[in-house]
Amino acid sequence: MSRAGEFELIRRYFAPLARGFPGADGLRSDNAIFAADGRRDLVVKTDTIVAGVHFLADETPQRIAEKALRVCLSDLAAGGAHPVAYQLALALPGSLNERWVAAFARALAADQRRYKILLSGGDTVRTPGPLSITVTAVGQVARGRALLRSGARAGDQLWVTGTIGDAALGLRVATDQLKPPTDEARFLEDRFRRPRPRTALGPQLIGIAHAAADVSDGLLADVGHVANASGLRVTMDRELVPLSRPARRAVQRLPGLWSTVLAGGDDYELVLAVPPRREAALLKAARAVRLLVTRIGRFDRGRGVELRSGGRKLAIERTGWDHFPGK
Amino acid sequence: MSRAGEFELIRRYFAPLARGFPGADGLRSDNAIFAADGRRDLVVKTDTIVAGVHFLADETPQRIAEKALRVCLSDLAAGGAHPVAYQLALALPGSLNERWVAAFARALAADQRRYKILLSGGDTVRTPGPLSITVTAVGQVARGRALLRSGARAGDQLWVTGTIGDAALGLRVATDQLKPPTDEARFLEDRFRRPRPRTALGPQLIGIAHAAADVSDGLLADVGHVANASGLRVTMDRELVPLSRPARRAVQRLPGLWSTVLAGGDDYELVLAVPPRREAALLKAARAVRLLVTRIGRFDRGRGVELRSGGRKLAIERTGWDHFPGK
Repeated sequence: MSRAGEFELIRRYFAPLARGFPGADGLRSDNAIFAADGRRDLVVKTDTIVAGVHFLADETPQRIAEKALRVCLSDLAAGGAHPVAYQLALALPGSLNERWVAAFARALAADQRRYKILLSGGDTVRTPGPLSITVTAVGQVARGRALLRSGARAGDQLWVTGTIGDAALGLRVATDQLKPPTDEARFLEDRFRRPRPRTALGPQLIGIAHAAADVSDGLLADVGHVANASGLRVTMDRELVPLSRPARRAVQRLPGLWSTVLAGGDDYELVLAVPPRREAALLKAARAVRLLVTRIGRFDRGRGVELRSGGRKLAIERTGWDHFPGK
Repeated sequence: MSRAGEFELIRRYFAPLARGFPGADGLRSDNAIFAADGRRDLVVKTDTIVAGVHFLADETPQRIAEKALRVCLSDLAAGGAHPVAYQLALALPGSLNERWVAAFARALAADQRRYKILLSGGDTVRTPGPLSITVTAVGQVARGRALLRSGARAGDQLWVTGTIGDAALGLRVATDQLKPPTDEARFLEDRFRRPRPRTALGPQLIGIAHAAADVSDGLLADVGHVANASGLRVTMDRELVPLSRPARRAVQRLPGLWSTVLAGGDDYELVLAVPPRREAALLKAARAVRLLVTRIGRFDRGRGVELRSGGRKLAIERTGWDHFPGK
């Protein structure tokens, strides 16, 4: 029996279970929206990270705590939501002792202060398997204003925050598959180990962006999710994709790394569909939080993702990370 | 380094992270409360179940789906909440194929109809470890009326729904440690494999019970949680604890099984602190949903759990299930 990809499993088996819950958006968006009071909606996101799959098995408790919380905060930012609270489900292998839990909790406390979020509840269990953490984060947003993947309109421009590809290259550095000069290696590895969710910009995007998603699966995949969910085609130009200096050097040395950059994932930047008339507002909001934003393409009628370079269309080998690579 | 128990870990490391979030009740209750509109609160509960820990490794996808959802619904019932929606985080080992996912989703769909709840979102990942499922269920309750563990008052009577111990005995049947006659074995095993959360009674308890908890860790443990969280002492009489006929016979044959009955857990019944003046209302509400309720003790000033039998105080060897048995 063949194995369906993750998104295919969701479409076939789980999306039907969400029919009738308007805030699930047919599971096309990462976030679920719960109507709260007349002024607010709650934005809810669940993410699971597993040792050896989503982070290195020997990662420190500090970095694991940060990753578990921040990958969810990244989705709340994409939804335009302010963080409120989170549920923490921790499946601990017997090898992790109380000292580990203490360090993990200290790192959560630091991130709670940084992102103004509080623990609301959770579950702690033992597992014979690897350390596994599920965070369900809850944010809030003005009623009916949460950004979804599905809101892009033809003519919107495609924007991205920060730089792309650093984390995917950083994973290769951390696993000794890539050996750039020391200072570049350090930068890339840090970008892999410590996601910086764009929580300061996220809530400012309400009224500016028509749609948003965070870049977790890979730029091409996540841009594709927005286009798909919005029923549009997206065209993007590889030359316009913002790269850090270490990433730029890496692809200059090894052009084959472009695929890692564009499809590697773990960027935790945001991709945005912004109408041209809101460009100035976007640039102003980004400047206010000292974040780079770059226009890299546009949405049009049609379907699919087109990647161009030097005026030519590029073949896309893979679009991004899929937890269930098909057959 | 010694290992702290689960509740000790929560008290030491996680409760401080919930300080400042009023709806977390200092993590003393299972549920978290989120203020929604002027009329409603949302009640949120997260539970993780792991193959080989919380259910048998060879359990069917149907029973696993039911268990994952129902253990959370049991907590919502204890909070007096109506189910609304749930987030599903699924960590799948490579051994489970699409056929498994399809059967799992069908069982969820059936339970969604039964309990009037919808999927709102989630995450699906691969794990090199055992199947692991985290459900975060969201219910709703009238503003400020959610039942907590911490609301019991001195003089309240202790009530329990249904019968106690069946599931713990059923686990022993399922693992061939106990061999009662066939019809009794079938009943007990079914009680272990298919939790029946008391969702019909739960919301009716608002205005009747001062405090509630579901019996998941074990009767003694969960009654103790209510007493602790409420800053009270609880005295209960073993003779009054309602047993099914198969459970009654099992402890008659093997009196050592009393400890399994009282501390085994997985009952998914409710324990309630009810003031004597609301006894008639409780009996009426229970009758309306055809559920047995039994008075088994009372809350008084003081601390701790006292178990009595035939007028004598019994020693309590263990109170219940702890995922992290101490040293």
